[in-house]
Amino acid sequence: MDPDAVAKAFVEHYYRTFDGNRAALGGLYQDASMLTFEGDKIQGAAAIVAKLTSLPFQQCAHAISTVDCQPSGPAGGVLVFVSGSLQLAGESHTLKFSQVFYLLSLSMSAFRHLVVRFD
Amino acid sequence: MDPDAVAKAFVEHYYRTFDGNRAALGGLYQDASMLTFEGDKIQGAAAIVAKLTSLPFQQCAHAISTVDCQPSGPAGGVLVFVSGSLQLAGESHTLKFSQVFYLLSLSMSAFRHLVVRFD
Repeated sequence: MDPDAVAKAFVEHYYRTFDGNRAALGGLYQDASMLTFEGDKIQGAAAIVAKLTSLPFQQCAHAISTVDCQPSGPAGGVLVFVSGSLQLAGESHTLKFSQVFYLLSLSMSAFRHLVVRFD
Repeated sequence: MDPDAVAKAFVEHYYRTFDGNRAALGGLYQDASMLTFEGDKIQGAAAIVAKLTSLPFQQCAHAISTVDCQPSGPAGGVLVFVSGSLQLAGESHTLKFSQVFYLLSLSMSAFRHLVVRFD
Protein backbone atom coordinates (compact mmCIF):
# COMPACT_ATOMS: atom_id res chain seq x y z
CA MET A 1 0.00 0.00 0.00
CA ASP A 2 1.24 3.49 -0.81
CA PRO A 3 2.72 5.09 2.36
CA ASP A 4 1.57 8.56 1.30
CA ALA A 5 -2.02 7.41 0.91
CA VAL A 6 -1.92 5.61 4.26
CA ALA A 7 -0.41 8.64 6.00
CA LYS A 8 -3.04 10.99 4.59
CA ALA A 9 -5.86 8.64 5.52
CA PHE A 10 -4.46 8.31 9.02
CA VAL A 11 -4.09 12.07 9.47
CA GLU A 12 -7.63 12.76 8.26
CA HIS A 13 -8.98 10.07 10.56
CA TYR A 14 -6.97 11.40 13.50
CA TYR A 15 -8.16 15.01 13.25
CA ARG A 16 -11.75 14.07 12.42
CA THR A 17 -11.78 11.97 15.60
CA PHE A 18 -10.02 14.71 17.60
CA ASP A 19 -12.59 17.30 16.52
CA GLY A 20 -15.61 15.00 16.85
CA ASN A 21 -14.96 12.73 19.85
CA ARG A 22 -11.57 13.26 21.41
CA ALA A 23 -11.91 10.40 23.90
CA ALA A 24 -12.11 7.95 20.99
CA LEU A 25 -8.47 8.71 20.14
CA GLY A 26 -7.57 6.21 22.86
CA GLY A 27 -8.11 3.39 20.39
CA LEU A 28 -5.20 4.67 18.31
CA TYR A 29 -2.61 4.55 21.11
CA GLN A 30 -0.76 1.75 22.84
CA ASP A 31 0.88 1.57 26.27
CA ALA A 32 4.24 2.33 24.62
CA SER A 33 2.86 5.38 22.81
CA MET A 34 4.35 8.73 23.67
CA LEU A 35 2.99 12.25 23.39
CA THR A 36 5.07 15.41 23.66
CA PHE A 37 2.57 18.26 23.82
CA GLU A 38 4.10 21.73 23.93
CA GLY A 39 7.08 20.18 25.70
CA ASP A 40 5.06 18.06 28.18
CA LYS A 41 5.98 14.37 27.93
CA ILE A 42 3.21 11.84 28.47
CA GLN A 43 3.31 8.06 27.99
CA GLY A 44 0.61 5.41 27.53
CA ALA A 45 -2.83 5.42 25.94
CA ALA A 46 -4.75 6.29 29.13
CA ALA A 47 -2.51 9.20 30.15
CA ILE A 48 -2.45 10.56 26.60
CA VAL A 49 -6.25 10.53 26.33
CA ALA A 50 -6.50 12.18 29.77
CA LYS A 51 -4.22 14.95 28.52
CA LEU A 52 -6.02 15.47 25.23
CA THR A 53 -9.49 15.49 26.79
CA SER A 54 -8.41 17.97 29.49
CA LEU A 55 -7.11 20.63 27.11
CA PRO A 56 -8.67 24.04 27.85
CA PHE A 57 -11.00 23.97 24.88
CA GLN A 58 -13.85 21.67 23.93
CA GLN A 59 -15.01 22.54 20.43
CA CYS A 60 -12.30 22.81 17.80
CA ALA A 61 -11.69 22.26 14.12
CA HIS A 62 -8.34 21.32 12.59
CA ALA A 63 -7.52 22.38 9.02
CA ILE A 64 -4.57 20.54 7.45
CA SER A 65 -2.16 22.55 5.29
CA THR A 66 0.61 20.04 4.51
CA VAL A 67 1.27 16.33 5.07
CA ASP A 68 4.81 15.03 4.45
CA CYS A 69 5.67 11.39 4.95
CA GLN A 70 8.69 9.15 4.63
CA PRO A 71 8.92 5.36 4.94
CA SER A 72 11.00 4.49 7.96
CA GLY A 73 12.65 1.30 9.07
CA PRO A 74 12.42 -2.35 8.05
CA ALA A 75 9.10 -2.92 9.83
CA GLY A 76 7.25 -0.59 7.47
CA GLY A 77 7.00 2.42 9.77
CA VAL A 78 6.05 5.84 8.45
CA LEU A 79 7.23 9.24 9.66
CA VAL A 80 4.50 11.85 9.12
CA PHE A 81 4.83 15.62 9.50
CA VAL A 82 1.67 17.74 9.50
CA SER A 83 1.20 21.49 9.56
CA GLY A 84 -2.11 23.29 9.77
CA SER A 85 -4.33 25.56 11.76
CA LEU A 86 -6.69 25.06 14.66
CA GLN A 87 -9.92 27.01 15.04
CA LEU A 88 -11.30 27.16 18.57
CA ALA A 89 -14.98 27.84 19.23
CA GLY A 90 -15.57 31.49 20.06
CA GLU A 91 -12.12 32.61 18.88
CA SER A 92 -11.75 34.75 15.77
CA HIS A 93 -8.12 33.82 15.14
CA THR A 94 -6.73 30.41 14.32
CA LEU A 95 -3.65 28.84 15.92
CA LYS A 96 -0.99 27.41 13.65
CA PHE A 97 0.28 23.99 14.66
CA SER A 98 2.92 21.48 13.62
CA GLN A 99 2.62 17.83 14.52
CA VAL A 100 4.73 14.74 13.97
CA PHE A 101 3.41 11.18 13.97
CA TYR A 102 5.52 8.08 13.89
CA LEU A 103 3.46 5.13 12.72
CA LEU A 104 5.11 1.84 13.61
CA SER A 105 3.56 0.09 10.65
CA LEU A 106 1.14 0.80 7.85
CA SER A 107 -1.53 -0.62 10.13
CA MET A 108 -3.19 2.37 11.76
CA SER A 109 -3.41 0.45 15.01
CA ALA A 110 0.33 0.73 15.60
CA PHE A 111 0.52 4.44 16.17
CA ARG A 112 3.25 5.24 18.61
CA HIS A 113 4.86 8.67 18.76
CA LEU A 114 3.46 12.13 18.57
CA VAL A 115 4.89 15.62 18.97
CA VAL A 116 2.70 18.73 18.96
CA ARG A 117 3.77 22.36 18.86
CA PHE A 118 1.75 25.51 18.39
CA ASP A 119 3.21 28.57 16.73
CA MET B 1 23.59 8.54 27.19
CA ASP B 2 20.64 10.87 27.67
CA PRO B 3 18.60 11.06 24.41
CA ASP B 4 17.64 14.70 25.06
CA ALA B 5 21.27 15.74 25.46
CA VAL B 6 22.27 13.84 22.32
CA ALA B 7 19.40 15.34 20.32
CA LYS B 8 20.27 18.88 21.40
CA ALA B 9 23.95 18.39 20.63
CA PHE B 10 23.07 16.98 17.23
CA VAL B 11 20.70 19.85 16.40
CA GLU B 12 23.25 22.48 17.42
CA HIS B 13 25.94 20.75 15.38
CA TYR B 14 23.62 20.44 12.37
CA TYR B 15 22.64 24.12 12.21
CA ARG B 16 26.13 25.38 13.01
CA THR B 17 27.39 23.33 10.07
CA PHE B 18 24.49 24.44 7.86
CA ASP B 19 25.19 28.10 8.58
CA GLY B 20 28.98 27.82 8.38
CA ASN B 21 29.78 25.27 5.67
CA ARG B 22 26.68 23.68 4.18
CA ALA B 23 28.61 21.23 1.98
CA ALA B 24 30.04 19.61 5.12
CA LEU B 25 26.53 18.34 6.01
CA GLY B 26 27.23 15.48 3.59
CA GLY B 27 29.15 13.70 6.31
CA LEU B 28 25.95 13.40 8.35
CA TYR B 29 23.94 11.59 5.67
CA GLN B 30 23.97 8.07 4.29
CA ASP B 31 22.80 6.67 0.96
CA ALA B 32 19.53 5.63 2.60
CA SER B 33 18.95 9.12 4.06
CA MET B 34 15.90 11.02 2.90
CA LEU B 35 15.11 14.70 2.78
CA THR B 36 11.66 16.17 2.25
CA PHE B 37 12.20 19.89 1.71
CA GLU B 38 9.03 21.93 1.29
CA GLY B 39 7.44 18.84 -0.24
CA ASP B 40 10.36 17.91 -2.55
CA LYS B 41 11.59 14.36 -1.88
CA ILE B 42 15.31 13.71 -2.23
CA GLN B 43 17.27 10.56 -1.36
CA GLY B 44 20.96 9.87 -0.72
CA ALA B 45 23.79 11.94 0.75
CA ALA B 46 25.03 13.36 -2.58
CA ALA B 47 21.59 14.46 -3.81
CA ILE B 48 20.69 15.93 -0.43
CA VAL B 49 23.88 18.00 -0.28
CA ALA B 50 23.30 19.14 -3.88
CA LYS B 51 19.83 20.34 -2.85
CA LEU B 52 20.97 22.10 0.31
CA THR B 53 23.91 23.85 -1.35
CA SER B 54 21.74 25.04 -4.27
CA LEU B 55 19.11 26.79 -2.13
CA PRO B 56 18.57 30.39 -3.27
CA PHE B 57 20.49 31.91 -0.37
CA GLN B 58 24.09 31.64 0.74
CA GLN B 59 24.49 33.40 4.08
CA CYS B 60 21.99 32.41 6.75
CA ALA B 61 21.67 32.00 10.49
CA HIS B 62 19.32 29.55 12.22
CA ALA B 63 17.93 30.34 15.68
CA ILE B 64 16.42 27.38 17.51
CA SER B 65 13.24 27.95 19.54
CA THR B 66 12.25 24.43 20.65
CA VAL B 67 13.75 20.93 20.51
CA ASP B 68 11.48 17.98 21.36
CA CYS B 69 12.76 14.44 21.27
CA GLN B 70 11.46 10.94 21.92
CA PRO B 71 13.35 7.65 22.01
CA SER B 72 12.16 5.48 19.15
CA GLY B 73 12.60 1.81 18.43
CA PRO B 74 14.75 -0.99 19.84
CA ALA B 75 17.91 0.16 18.02
CA GLY B 76 18.08 3.36 20.07
CA GLY B 77 16.71 5.75 17.46
CA VAL B 78 15.58 9.25 18.39
CA LEU B 79 12.78 11.31 16.85
CA VAL B 80 13.64 15.02 17.04
CA PHE B 81 11.31 17.93 16.29
CA VAL B 82 12.79 21.42 15.97
CA SER B 83 11.14 24.81 15.51
CA GLY B 84 12.95 28.06 15.00
CA SER B 85 13.62 30.97 12.72
CA LEU B 86 15.97 31.52 9.82
CA GLN B 87 17.63 34.87 9.13
CA LEU B 88 18.80 35.39 5.55
CA ALA B 89 21.53 37.90 4.71
CA GLY B 90 20.04 41.16 3.46
CA GLU B 91 16.50 40.33 4.66
CA SER B 92 14.94 42.24 7.53
CA HIS B 93 12.38 39.54 8.38
CA THR B 94 13.07 36.03 9.59
CA LEU B 95 11.40 32.89 8.26
CA LYS B 96 9.87 30.48 10.75
CA PHE B 97 10.72 26.85 10.14
CA SER B 98 9.84 23.43 11.53
CA GLN B 99 12.10 20.45 10.99
CA VAL B 100 12.02 16.79 11.93
CA PHE B 101 15.07 14.56 12.26
CA TYR B 102 14.99 10.84 12.72
CA LEU B 103 18.29 9.63 14.13
CA LEU B 104 18.74 5.91 13.65
CA SER B 105 20.93 5.61 16.71
CA LEU B 106 22.48 7.80 19.35
CA SER B 107 25.56 7.87 17.14
CA MET B 108 25.37 11.08 15.16
CA SER B 109 26.68 9.26 12.11
CA ALA B 110 23.42 7.37 11.65
CA PHE B 111 21.22 10.29 10.71
CA ARG B 112 18.60 9.21 8.25
CA HIS B 113 15.37 11.18 7.80
CA LEU B 114 14.66 14.83 7.58
CA VAL B 115 11.57 16.92 6.88
CA VAL B 116 11.70 20.70 6.50
CA ARG B 117 8.79 23.14 6.25
CA PHE B 118 8.76 26.90 6.33
CA ASP B 119 5.82 28.82 7.70
